[in-house]
This record gives sequence, structure tokens and C-alpha cells, in this order.
Amino acid sequence: MNGKQNYTMLFDFYEMTMSNGYFQTGLAERICYFDVFFRSVPDGGGFAIAAGLEQVVDYIRNLRFDEEDIEYLRGKGLRDEAFLDYLRRFRFTGDIWAVPEGTPVFPREPILTVRAPAIEAQLIETFVLLTLNHQSLIATKASRIVRAAQGRPVSEFGSRRAQGADGALAGARAAYIAGCSGTACAMADELYGVPAGGTMAHSWVQMFPDEFTAFDTYCGLYPDSVTLLVDTYNVLKSGVLNAIRAFQKHGITKCAIRIDSGDLTYLSKKARRMLDEAGLTGCKIVASNALDEYIIRDLLGQGACIDSFGVGERLITSKSEPVFGGVYKLAAVEDDAGHIIPRIKISENPAKVTTPHFKKVYRIFEEDSGKAIADLITVYDEQVDPNAPLELFDPDAVWKRKTIEHFQMEELLVPVFQKGELVYDLPDIETLRQRCARELDRQWDEVKRFENPHNYYVDLSQKLWDIKAQLLKDAKA
Amino acid sequence: MNGKQNYTMLFDFYEMTMSNGYFQTGLAERICYFDVFFRSVPDGGGFAIAAGLEQVVDYIRNLRFDEEDIEYLRGKGLRDEAFLDYLRRFRFTGDIWAVPEGTPVFPREPILTVRAPAIEAQLIETFVLLTLNHQSLIATKASRIVRAAQGRPVSEFGSRRAQGADGALAGARAAYIAGCSGTACAMADELYGVPAGGTMAHSWVQMFPDEFTAFDTYCGLYPDSVTLLVDTYNVLKSGVLNAIRAFQKHGITKCAIRIDSGDLTYLSKKARRMLDEAGLTGCKIVASNALDEYIIRDLLGQGACIDSFGVGERLITSKSEPVFGGVYKLAAVEDDAGHIIPRIKISENPAKVTTPHFKKVYRIFEEDSGKAIADLITVYDEQVDPNAPLELFDPDAVWKRKTIEHFQMEELLVPVFQKGELVYDLPDIETLRQRCARELDRQWDEVKRFENPHNYYVDLSQKLWDIKAQLLKDAKA
Repeated sequence: MNGKQNYTMLFDFYEMTMSNGYFQTGLAERICYFDVFFRSVPDGGGFAIAAGLEQVVDYIRNLRFDEEDIEYLRGKGLRDEAFLDYLRRFRFTGDIWAVPEGTPVFPREPILTVRAPAIEAQLIETFVLLTLNHQSLIATKASRIVRAAQGRPVSEFGSRRAQGADGALAGARAAYIAGCSGTACAMADELYGVPAGGTMAHSWVQMFPDEFTAFDTYCGLYPDSVTLLVDTYNVLKSGVLNAIRAFQKHGITKCAIRIDSGDLTYLSKKARRMLDEAGLTGCKIVASNALDEYIIRDLLGQGACIDSFGVGERLITSKSEPVFGGVYKLAAVEDDAGHIIPRIKISENPAKVTTPHFKKVYRIFEEDSGKAIADLITVYDEQVDPNAPLELFDPDAVWKRKTIEHFQMEELLVPVFQKGELVYDLPDIETLRQRCARELDRQWDEVKRFENPHNYYVDLSQKLWDIKAQLLKDAKA
Repeated sequence: MNGKQNYTMLFDFYEMTMSNGYFQTGLAERICYFDVFFRSVPDGGGFAIAAGLEQVVDYIRNLRFDEEDIEYLRGKGLRDEAFLDYLRRFRFTGDIWAVPEGTPVFPREPILTVRAPAIEAQLIETFVLLTLNHQSLIATKASRIVRAAQGRPVSEFGSRRAQGADGALAGARAAYIAGCSGTACAMADELYGVPAGGTMAHSWVQMFPDEFTAFDTYCGLYPDSVTLLVDTYNVLKSGVLNAIRAFQKHGITKCAIRIDSGDLTYLSKKARRMLDEAGLTGCKIVASNALDEYIIRDLLGQGACIDSFGVGERLITSKSEPVFGGVYKLAAVEDDAGHIIPRIKISENPAKVTTPHFKKVYRIFEEDSGKAIADLITVYDEQVDPNAPLELFDPDAVWKRKTIEHFQMEELLVPVFQKGELVYDLPDIETLRQRCARELDRQWDEVKRFENPHNYYVDLSQKLWDIKAQLLKDAKA
């Protein structure tokens, strides 16, 4: 396996056109604040799971243009040597704050904030979005599927249907953080530490003169860990019978069968009875074939005898909603004196109006239950007293107010880069997976419903709300 | 930019488990034939566009396990030193035939065939599928969108919403082959030669004290190629007016505006009138914002004044159907004497029964019109006389027969690897794009409808049909 790809050139060309423009007009060093946030949760869910930060960090640390890149840009008409020299020396020197991976996040709150000179902030837009959008999409979908399985292991099987190699690899990583038990993809294991496993395809069975010989051979080779695929010819009339014969011949009791087609409820119940009657009560049943959270919920609701799931294309592409709509919007700039000037982007669609300014995000937990009750976005320099009553209000309906007491609060965005230096200890993947499970436990079940979840509150402080209202008013004038 | 990633480890773990099994049981060198084919066209279309072969070739040529990979596998329990030594020496030594990229392809016909020793054929399954599935998915979607635009350029803008870096890069490549005019992604240009372009984001406009200053500055910097984004504040009341002022101040007539939100039909008509009244009849209007083939068809049907389109997330993820279901199935094995023994995979679902044997695929063109009328799949050693009448029949309804005369035929699968050596001249991307356009022209409009297209015939020769029927009969017995 070779080293990490350098993705410096993975920008949208307009970012370079603008960067050259900033350079030529003396705006290159203007400090800007950009937020990454999203506007709606895929599949109508209550929240997303943030993921992809580690790959953003790798990208930022590897940012540099080599001579081949410079030549390419010159060929595209960027011929100002001073600017090309600037690019040769280009490094990220700014600050980044982000939500740790595995955290449930909600629409319209920053999940990553960049403070950097204009060109640096602009050129990283595409890759930062691409990475957070992709991995958060898959983590969010995987979390739904894992919850549907009610504690049964869910393994990610989708590499062959992923949208590109990175879709398979980073997708397997995100799925594991969100609770999958592992992946089929060996490279995701070697690269990211996602446990990989797998036993046989239909082709194994087809390679032998008959199904029993295929199973018998396999049991001889791997007696300690054997999962036989029983649907190459006929699940009940052939596959399960031959599996039982093979297990019994080899005295194997710690084993499994996998059913990859047909009516999984019916077949799993019948197979369970056959296995039990043969004394193979310890033999597990694995199901796969175009599964997702809805099908798994239905299977379990009908009493399917399934011990674990392999989930492919519908997870690795988030088939039911394959786009995570994170955006990267300018929130503020600094003037020459270092004052932070909030900036807003207006839209006829109120949901598309941005929340201006350099901000902090707090998650507020009820002291009794330990459950999260709201997120509060404030201006960066506001103090929130955790010991005083706190008034929250709906930013879209300001008359809806409530005062809370006995709460705890945690800041969501943690420092990742300061002055271009990494200041964040990247957790290993097991820690992220545990974090995700723990943070999910701190959300109410009502927020975790698949459909029509409780609308979690993401509120603005009064000060931030006032600033936004004033900017809207100014823009209209 | 650094070199190409080595994806040898991007396999599903079961392929390695099986490979070790083949090795231990003397089947390692057994010659196998695997076909890649798909069962249904995304979005209910009439055909798919094959893409991704060049990346399959890169992958095959780079196949090798390094010591780090061997150590990883040993850690996973594969401890047989003879097998690990085999992997150290592992190279692809087999044959591959494939449909050239940019070719319209149809369900249930091989688009790639592998003939190789069992382990080699098995270990490449995942990456070959992943690559062909991904790029064929995006090429197929892009072809629909380009056709909807009726000759207007369609640029691919979706990197930030792609499923991983490779989703963006290879996706841009596939979209270009299928007819897109270019991409926003600079790295797709540098890596694959997809022309990249781009001008400004909303953040450029926000960086200046007012919209006119932003436009004025930009026109000063890039007078030869300027597209102003006019929807940061208000398209008609602000953006178009300021754009006209800026164009006029700089005497620019070769220019464009881009509208990225709102009702694109209404806004484009109004903007067109304003531009024309200002004498800017040469100013183009570019539209973007969640477009796909259906929205573009509706916009043009309503007379929207749009000269070109930027298409993002719905293209780069094929949002309406984000999975291309190509599969990799064993079709035959050779016995010790080198005889080819056809193999079949049965399913209760007739569409899932595989077509056995080592095969050839011919596309048959009507001599008069030059249009394709059917694909014919034969056993590898059959001769089809292009000068004799040819009887075709529907393999699912064998009484539906017709005899054709005056036709021409072309073999679809071309040799790519022979005995592990690349024997195929990889066409450059412009050649592939031209090929795609030309091959689309050879399809009837009825096949190219977005919904309910004519069901193109993919027929089996009598000999192949008889072999399949016999194997089905044998399996049932």
C-alpha cells in the first residue's frame, strides 16, 4: 500500500480564480471566517453524525502545490509570477475549530469553522466540504441501520457498489464510527483499522463439483470460523441441508450460514428450525441482500431469525438520500484593525439566510436525565453562566421562549488547528466509535425516531439574533 | 500531485479467504471465466454508458502486495507461508476483454470478461466492479442530463457533494466522456484532462463593500472571460443591474451571468430582457442549483433563456438512482485438459439466472439507417456469417423470432489484456468522448427516451440458449 494522496489540487476552479483576484487586489491576507453547516438531515431523520475530520486534518497538513501543479495553472492562464510564487510557498496558517467525529449534529449549526487569510480559507472549501459531506452522510445512514438492527451486528459489505475507491474506504470508516461492527473491505482495515472479515462468495460453491464438496472443503480449511453461503442453488432444499452435513462431519458448532437472496423472514425461520433440529443451536444466521433500516425493521418486526446483517449498496451510497448538503459560507471578515465584521448571505428562502459572525456552539444537557435538550449558538465573545437560569428562544418564532435551570453545557467546536499547527489529538477509530455510541445515548429517543423525529432546538443567543436581524435590515435598505 | 494509488488491497476479505482456499486445495491455477454485467438501467433508461476501463487497466498493472500488506494478512490469520509467498509474487497473468468506454451497453450482456487462474480472477472482483459501476453510473446519468440540455453545454460542478475524492475525480471523468463540456474540479483536469473552469462564488461578492465593487473588480481582473454570479443579494433588483453596469464600464460584451437560486425560468427570461435592452445581446446566461435532466427539460420546455448549465450533486452522485448494479459472476472453468466447462448460477428470480460460458457479444446494425437493432451473445467459438440471413429470438420468449438481412455487425468486447500484458491502446479522453457521441448517434431515439424506452434486444444464439437450458435442467435434476 502506498502513501496518502495529496489533494491540494482538489478545488473548484473558481476558488483559484478568486484567490488570484484576492492576491491582485490586496485582499490575500484579509482574515475571513467561514462556517460549514448543513440545512436538512438526510432521510428525514432528527440529526446527522459528524465524520471526516481526520481526513480534513490530513489534507490540511499536506497542502502544497508542486511544480507540476504550478505549470498546470500557468497553462490555464494564471500567469502572474508573483501569484505563482505565492502558491509555491502556500501553506495553511489559519485556525480551524470542529465538532469531533461521531457527534450528533443538527441543521444550521456550524460543524467546522475556519479563520484564515482569504486565499487559504477559499482554496480549502471544496475538499473540506467533500470530506465532511461524504463521511457524515455515510455515518448518518449507518447509524440508522445499526439502530434498526437493535443490537445485532451490522457489517458493511458495499465496496463494489461504492462511488469510487474513496467512497468504499472512507465510507467503511464512517460506517464503523457510527456503529457498524466491521467491513468486508481489507483496505479499509489496513488503512483505517476497520475490522475486515469475509468467508465465501457464490463462486466458491460453483468452483466445486457440488455444494456439499464446496462446504466440506471450506470447513476443513477454516474450522474455527466458518460461515457458509447457502443460496447458490436452493436455500432450504440444498444449502442448509449441505451446511448441516458439513458442520456435523467436521464437528463444528461455532459457525454460521448466510442467506443472500429470497424472502429473508421465511427462509431464516425455516433455516433456524432446521439448524436447531440438527442440534446446531449455536449456528448463527447472517442475512444480506439490498438491506437498509426499513427492511431490517420489517424483518425483525416479522420475527425473522437473523443474528447479524451484511449491508451493501444502500449503506455505502446512502441510496435513499445520497447527498449530504453541507455548505461553506463566509460568516465574518476582519478589518485592518482586527475587528471582526459579521457578514451575511441573503436569500428569498429564509432557511438559506446564513447566520453571521464568528460563533460558539454549546450543547445543553438536562442535569437530571443527562440528555441533550438544545444547542445554543452565541457570538464568540459571549459568556454563558452555567449556574444562572438560561432563556432559550426559537430563532424562527421568537415568542417561543423558555427558561431552563439545572443544566450542564459543553462546547461543541474544539480547536483543531491554531496558526496552522495541529493542536488536536486525533482519537483512534475505536475511541470515535465509542464516542458516537455515548453521544447517541445522550439524545432522547424522540430525536432518534426514523420518521417525524422531535425537532431538536438549535437556538441563537439574543445578542447573535440581534446582529443577524440588524444585518438583514441593513441589506434590505 | 503525487502518483497513483495502489489498490491491490481493495478487495472484499472473502476473496482472500477463498484464494487461500483455492491455494490449499490445488485450485489456484484453475482457469476461470468471469463476466461483469448489470441487470437494469438506472432511472428506467434504455441503456447505460460503459466507463471506467482505463482505471481498471491502471489497477491491474499495479497489482502487487508489499510487505506491509503481507504482514497485515498474517495478522488476520493467514499464516501459511507458501500462500504468503505466492502473494508476494502475485501478478495478473490472465486475459481481459471489455467494451470500450463510452459505448452504450444493455442489461445482461457481458461488458467485461476475465479469463485467469482462480485466485487472480477472484481477487480483482471488488475493484473491477467498483470502478465500472461507479463510472458507468455517472456516465449514464451525465448522458441523460446532456441530452436534456439539447446541445447547450453542461458543466459538472459537484465535487463538494461527491462521495469521496475519487467520486469527484473519476466522476468528472465519466461525466466528460458522456458529453459534459467540462468540470469545476481542477484536479480532474490535471489528472484526467477534463477541462476545468470557474469564476466566482458568493464569497467573492461578500468580500467587497458592495456588489458593484465586487463585479467591477472582477471585470478589471478578467476582462476576457467573465461570468458574474448575480444572486448573492437579489437577482433582478441588484445582481443583473450591477452586472450590466460593470460590463458597460469595462466595455465587455463577451461575458455571462450565472443564476444559482430562485425560479430559473422566470429569472432567466427577465434577465435576458434586461441584458438585451442594455445592448448585451452576447451575454450568456448560466443556470445552476440542484439541476438534473427532468428540471432542465422543464426549464427549456417553459422557454427559459438559459445558454448553459452547471450541474452538481444530482449528477456527481446520480442522486435519483445512486447505485449501478454491475455483478461479477463465474461463467465457466477449464478442466485439466483445457476444455471450457460452462457454469451457471441459479436463482428463483429468472432475471438473476446467469448466462453461462465463455461468450462473444456482437452489435448488429441495420445497413440502411446505420442504427443498432440488437446485440447478439454467442458462444466464443461460434461463427456468425454477416452475409447470410440471421435469425434472432427473444431468450425470454423464444417464439418471438425474426430474421434479419442487410446488416453489419461489430464485436463489442475487445482484447485488453492477453497473458497479463496490456494489448489495448487506451484512447485519450477526447477520443472516448467522441466515441460516446458517435455510438449514441447509432442508437434509435426510441431507445434514448428518458421514460419507457424501447426495450432493445439482447439475444442469445441458439447454441448458447440450448447450453443454458440444459444447465438449468441439470441443476433442477
